[in-house]
Amino acid sequence: MTKSEGMKVTPYETQGRIDYDRLIKEFGVSKLDETVINRVKKHTKDLHLFLRRGVFFAHRDLNWLLDEYEKGNKFFLYTGRASSRGSKVHLGHLIPWIMCKWLQDKFGAEMWFQFPDEEKFFYKKDVTFEDTEKATHEDMLDIIALGFDSKKTHFLIDTKHAGIMYKEACKVAKKITFNTVKASFGFDESTNIGSIFYTSMQAVPAFLPSVIKGKNIPCLIPLGVDQDPHFRISRDVMPKLGYYKPAILHNVFLPPLTGIGGKMAASGQMEAAIYTTDTTKEVERKINKYAFSGGRDTIEEHRKLGGNPDVDVSYQYLRMLLEENDAKLKKIYDDYKSGKMTTGELKKYTIEKINAFLKEHQKKREGAKKIVEKFVWK
Amino acid sequence: MTKSEGMKVTPYETQGRIDYDRLIKEFGVSKLDETVINRVKKHTKDLHLFLRRGVFFAHRDLNWLLDEYEKGNKFFLYTGRASSRGSKVHLGHLIPWIMCKWLQDKFGAEMWFQFPDEEKFFYKKDVTFEDTEKATHEDMLDIIALGFDSKKTHFLIDTKHAGIMYKEACKVAKKITFNTVKASFGFDESTNIGSIFYTSMQAVPAFLPSVIKGKNIPCLIPLGVDQDPHFRISRDVMPKLGYYKPAILHNVFLPPLTGIGGKMAASGQMEAAIYTTDTTKEVERKINKYAFSGGRDTIEEHRKLGGNPDVDVSYQYLRMLLEENDAKLKKIYDDYKSGKMTTGELKKYTIEKINAFLKEHQKKREGAKKIVEKFVWK
Repeated sequence: MTKSEGMKVTPYETQGRIDYDRLIKEFGVSKLDETVINRVKKHTKDLHLFLRRGVFFAHRDLNWLLDEYEKGNKFFLYTGRASSRGSKVHLGHLIPWIMCKWLQDKFGAEMWFQFPDEEKFFYKKDVTFEDTEKATHEDMLDIIALGFDSKKTHFLIDTKHAGIMYKEACKVAKKITFNTVKASFGFDESTNIGSIFYTSMQAVPAFLPSVIKGKNIPCLIPLGVDQDPHFRISRDVMPKLGYYKPAILHNVFLPPLTGIGGKMAASGQMEAAIYTTDTTKEVERKINKYAFSGGRDTIEEHRKLGGNPDVDVSYQYLRMLLEENDAKLKKIYDDYKSGKMTTGELKKYTIEKINAFLKEHQKKREGAKKIVEKFVWK
Repeated sequence: MTKSEGMKVTPYETQGRIDYDRLIKEFGVSKLDETVINRVKKHTKDLHLFLRRGVFFAHRDLNWLLDEYEKGNKFFLYTGRASSRGSKVHLGHLIPWIMCKWLQDKFGAEMWFQFPDEEKFFYKKDVTFEDTEKATHEDMLDIIALGFDSKKTHFLIDTKHAGIMYKEACKVAKKITFNTVKASFGFDESTNIGSIFYTSMQAVPAFLPSVIKGKNIPCLIPLGVDQDPHFRISRDVMPKLGYYKPAILHNVFLPPLTGIGGKMAASGQMEAAIYTTDTTKEVERKINKYAFSGGRDTIEEHRKLGGNPDVDVSYQYLRMLLEENDAKLKKIYDDYKSGKMTTGELKKYTIEKINAFLKEHQKKREGAKKIVEKFVWK
């Protein structure tokens, strides 16, 4: 658990303005610097905007993973999504998944996607398995909509696939004490024993393909940095079971509409996020009403002094997710900073970009309904 | 955990001379008295020697179970066996299983038999799943050899059947805190998170048939009293999940050869127990060499003052397991007590009885090898 000066980042709580440089130090991860990014580029030819613009900012063992790849030892990808009651997928959730899809295309990698349906069940008093089952189905549609290859992508739902997962989780659990999870997740003696056990299940997909295929296969996990504590633990355990430590790629959080710093929350502040199922009207209303602006109080002042794109949420959404074109993004940055572009204009463009993205996404999401079963591991 | 004056009885440790009357008080269970035994007899016509002679000495909710039965609400039976590395079944293990077989016959009850292969894996450092798999197979042979009806008897192996068990275990786990398991099993912060979670899996077979059949079915669990702490916890949880509390029948421990008090241990003191696979020679050697005797130091003294059958292990084996005939048992008691029967004669008779039992058992055990799969739940 990282907790100082109001900042707290665990899988179960994110508080305060997040200082990512400090997280790198406190979590003991490596900065995703130009050298390692250029090693990736050697294989991928181009670079996803997430890598060009620091949306993924840290890693563990990426150099080792590339060493293995260059020796002909291909890796697989693993990430996950813990569905809760009424929790919907927002744009921030998509970041690690889009990264996975890109990496799958570039490296021809198998993708294992975990739906730990018991996680929120354990952590949230009122959540039932009926809730998580419904939400998991909805979430799968969003993931499939991103274009994953059904032949190379496998969905694991913890309670459904416990027949192959539980025994492996037991092997992990035997190597982890209550002390360890207590420290990592902020548990105490009143924590339920399901929550205490759960991290063992989250470890399993990082080596299950190695179990199934009977050989040790490197694993790369793109994830939101708040999930890192789970893998700090399982990276200690996996070599003891004879598996590689998984490599990890950490992304920053897409800021909530209400301002940068913090993490966009799917539950709670429903108005502070753009959901994948939002209508064009909802997007327009939310961006106009809530998206924190780096503009000045009046048009006159803005024209004269210019705005601050670095704190402007609309600009950040363009930078982090929506504006693929670097030159165009730079022009927006400069124009907004000089005052040539107003907040109204910036918001209008952002709304257009979001709605164009969602139109396509929602179409594919609808199409996904017919092919969900192809993705579920048999 | 019960721990006072050197007596300690938990699923993971049994120490000291066991005072069963005190256990009844400390565990908060009911004495299996004549009134409730006579209620059983109303349905079974005769009574198994375990019930005639106090081998089962306590219960929880047996009157309620009989109320339900008399209303036409039939119960199912549940017990289990945690296999470990090299652990073999000894005569003491058979007691709850023989009780189950008798109850199955008398009440036409379905039997669910759990093999929690992860339990010893969690609790014993050096035990692997290869060990437990091998041992579980051996143990199944002993259980089948007792004559269970394959159509009404279902084996659940935790890691194999996690596909149906884990989700139910999660529902239990959500309702149990670390504090509770800490107090019940003597855990601390260095306990592994698998051990902490495990009791949830042990709860599952007590309501899984209700889940499968979609209706609430009463459950009766015959068990060694050291297993009671698991069900003290799950009996609190099950009504919260909408299921009946299981009724329980507690047996005393068959004493180790070395003397009454304590529990016959399968691991460790291999010489202190009679195993189901022992040869006639081994039985003879063990009884002659180790079986604690209530006799006098010399034949002359014995003839004159008589022996003490109450502490004599051979006599106790006859009483608790091997001598079905009450009149014959009484005669042995009287003759030994008066000095008419010598220790040598008592041991000889006991060896004959054990070997007769094992001859039959080993034959059936051999036959069981061909039909194991019939018992494993599909």
